[in-house]
Amino acid sequence: MNKITIAVVGAGTVGGGVIDVLTKEHAKLKREGVDIVLKTICATKKPKASDVVIPSSTTFTTDIKKIYEDPEIDVVVELISNVKVGGEIILQSLRSGKSVVSANKAALAEVYPEISKILKENLNLYVGIEAAVAGGIPVIAPLIEHMCSDSISRISGILNGTTNFIITKMEKEGLAYQDVLKEAQALGYAEADPKADVDGYDARSKLSLLMQLAYGIHPNKDISTTGISDIADIDFEYARMLNATIRCLGVGAREGNKVSGFVSPCIVSNTSNFAAITGATNAVSIDSKYLRNTFLVGQGAGRYPTAVSVISDVVRIAKGSCYSIAPRDNKVPTFVQDYQGQFYIRLYIQDGLGIVEKVGNICKKHKVSIDAILQLPVGTKDILPFVITTDTTMLSKVKKIVDELEKLSFVKGRPFMMPIIKAG
Amino acid sequence: MNKITIAVVGAGTVGGGVIDVLTKEHAKLKREGVDIVLKTICATKKPKASDVVIPSSTTFTTDIKKIYEDPEIDVVVELISNVKVGGEIILQSLRSGKSVVSANKAALAEVYPEISKILKENLNLYVGIEAAVAGGIPVIAPLIEHMCSDSISRISGILNGTTNFIITKMEKEGLAYQDVLKEAQALGYAEADPKADVDGYDARSKLSLLMQLAYGIHPNKDISTTGISDIADIDFEYARMLNATIRCLGVGAREGNKVSGFVSPCIVSNTSNFAAITGATNAVSIDSKYLRNTFLVGQGAGRYPTAVSVISDVVRIAKGSCYSIAPRDNKVPTFVQDYQGQFYIRLYIQDGLGIVEKVGNICKKHKVSIDAILQLPVGTKDILPFVITTDTTMLSKVKKIVDELEKLSFVKGRPFMMPIIKAG
Repeated sequence: MNKITIAVVGAGTVGGGVIDVLTKEHAKLKREGVDIVLKTICATKKPKASDVVIPSSTTFTTDIKKIYEDPEIDVVVELISNVKVGGEIILQSLRSGKSVVSANKAALAEVYPEISKILKENLNLYVGIEAAVAGGIPVIAPLIEHMCSDSISRISGILNGTTNFIITKMEKEGLAYQDVLKEAQALGYAEADPKADVDGYDARSKLSLLMQLAYGIHPNKDISTTGISDIADIDFEYARMLNATIRCLGVGAREGNKVSGFVSPCIVSNTSNFAAITGATNAVSIDSKYLRNTFLVGQGAGRYPTAVSVISDVVRIAKGSCYSIAPRDNKVPTFVQDYQGQFYIRLYIQDGLGIVEKVGNICKKHKVSIDAILQLPVGTKDILPFVITTDTTMLSKVKKIVDELEKLSFVKGRPFMMPIIKAG
Repeated sequence: MNKITIAVVGAGTVGGGVIDVLTKEHAKLKREGVDIVLKTICATKKPKASDVVIPSSTTFTTDIKKIYEDPEIDVVVELISNVKVGGEIILQSLRSGKSVVSANKAALAEVYPEISKILKENLNLYVGIEAAVAGGIPVIAPLIEHMCSDSISRISGILNGTTNFIITKMEKEGLAYQDVLKEAQALGYAEADPKADVDGYDARSKLSLLMQLAYGIHPNKDISTTGISDIADIDFEYARMLNATIRCLGVGAREGNKVSGFVSPCIVSNTSNFAAITGATNAVSIDSKYLRNTFLVGQGAGRYPTAVSVISDVVRIAKGSCYSIAPRDNKVPTFVQDYQGQFYIRLYIQDGLGIVEKVGNICKKHKVSIDAILQLPVGTKDILPFVITTDTTMLSKVKKIVDELEKLSFVKGRPFMMPIIKAG
């Protein structure tokens, strides 16, 4: 029997779930050979008994120092939402000689360089992050352990359940973004301040962690990130004309010694596995040399799915068999902003003569060949949505085209651009 | 650095893949902290150099005893196709104090009771079976490690790539089973003797291993197994009328203290994740208390995908961090043949008066309520395909109905029955 003593920091949705599952499944976990002792719970205030039942053998404290200083505690389970404080707790716990399990993706992405330094010098410490990416889906352990002999060429995912909930509701019910957002907030699927989700920052943190494990690089805030708020309902109609739909993806792709990555709404072919992922579900698609494609689907968030991932890491650490997220000694590829692909550009125009010609000239000037021009008979003469899709080209060229299109007198506002994803 | 010395038994498709990947990725695996020494390869005859390159530092032998007797060998990687011999090698290796990694699902399912006895008495030995179920998909480790705090209520999967290749080609191109089978054989997707695949026995072995891990029971040959050879092209048209398609699934479901399981072609709703799985791809769907649903998709077979799974187990054993497939001490549920569900029954009839009434009376007698009666205007008056679907009932009742239907004068041959799967 492997006995391990832990502290849980944060007693909100996920923390409460972890405490609950640890209590209810203690006997089951013992049958797995692990006796998890929940010694201390730390939070800014004591949770209501109706939300979280603190076991009688567990101490509650508001003082995090008590945890750092307690020599009995082997693992700190960090489950708060604050990024800065979360990062400090992760690092201070490690410096106090304790392993860490965390679901705080933004904090982990932020302090990863410091984490990796500590791990390289302290081979007895582990940082478990299974719950930080794609919630309840087993993705971190498979990526590190299952694919240890394989080489990943592309990792992409629906990494944020809130945005997928909103997008797929827009898709299904033909509603506008703002209306669906309000509904999602009322239902508790979106936060009152939805920025981290809808602007793509949550997905960016997760993508950066995945890219660290897949490629050994940690681009974090360098990852170009586009949120979902500029998606118009008309984009779904144009997507349908392309036998496709829209999903917000985080994508990290390797070509030789270069890795590119972005978070963005994408035009996704209906034949892609991603097209079938609806609601708050998450999905991760991994292309690799030997396994070809592995596609993992499940609950991206939520009290209990996240708790299961957290506890799996605690058990791994208890058994001394946790994967290592420390970087491997190897030459790593370079992160680049530019990447090859096909793109969708939607502009609102004031209808008139010679529009196709002018748009065509701009594309020609940048040597980008147009794949399709789409104009549905919707809108008014003054504000008509108009779409072009490109053949395979570079993002940098398409950005220049978008800049020039924006300056045209008949173009209203900034054109909206999305990568087109055919596989995965 | 964890150094481990292994022997590979079998140098066919998968064995050759393992040898190839171990050679090519030796440096990469060392960066993961594992030095895998391939000391011995054993096969009935030496493979051609054009198929498998045996490293110069590796010994080739046709004598398996040399492996059992070699004290340097830590792990025997058993990758032959013969069930009986495979089982003997697995057990004899364990008895010789060596851990085993095997992709031989039929052998593992056959000797699992003996394996489990040996593992309980030898806690330093491991049996890695990641490659034995769903080829390259990470499913065994997630099931045991990721879900260690969770409780599985249902595990189902497209567990055989050959049958899924045949079924989805029938579906897409409207071809008859025999024609597609011949094509699959010509392409190498099906064996010259396709029995293990098309009759469902391969999927049965895999399902039994999954049920062992999910529920602690090992029904193996008690699992009712129906192959795909009786699927008619018309069944796809009827499925379409039900907004569904056909997939061959292995399903193991727990209800309280009872577990039922079967391998059978199923009517699968188009909204199910399984409906999108085409070609030789495999997929496993796991319903559980906390994670709700986890859906894992990837290559179910093939030289390199299987090799990656095999090597992941060797690495786990080298690191001393392999999952244990030994049964946990816990009261296990009982395996039962009967289960609740909706069913599809297709009969060929000679058209005449009063048919619906007679069929209806038989269903009424067994207290099974009919959900739909379908009769497409195809076939001749003498041999018309006719379909009924039931409301939720028990399999045992539907079997009695099928027996009685078969005896009716206007019914030609044995009616063909499939469970209807809506979720998953």
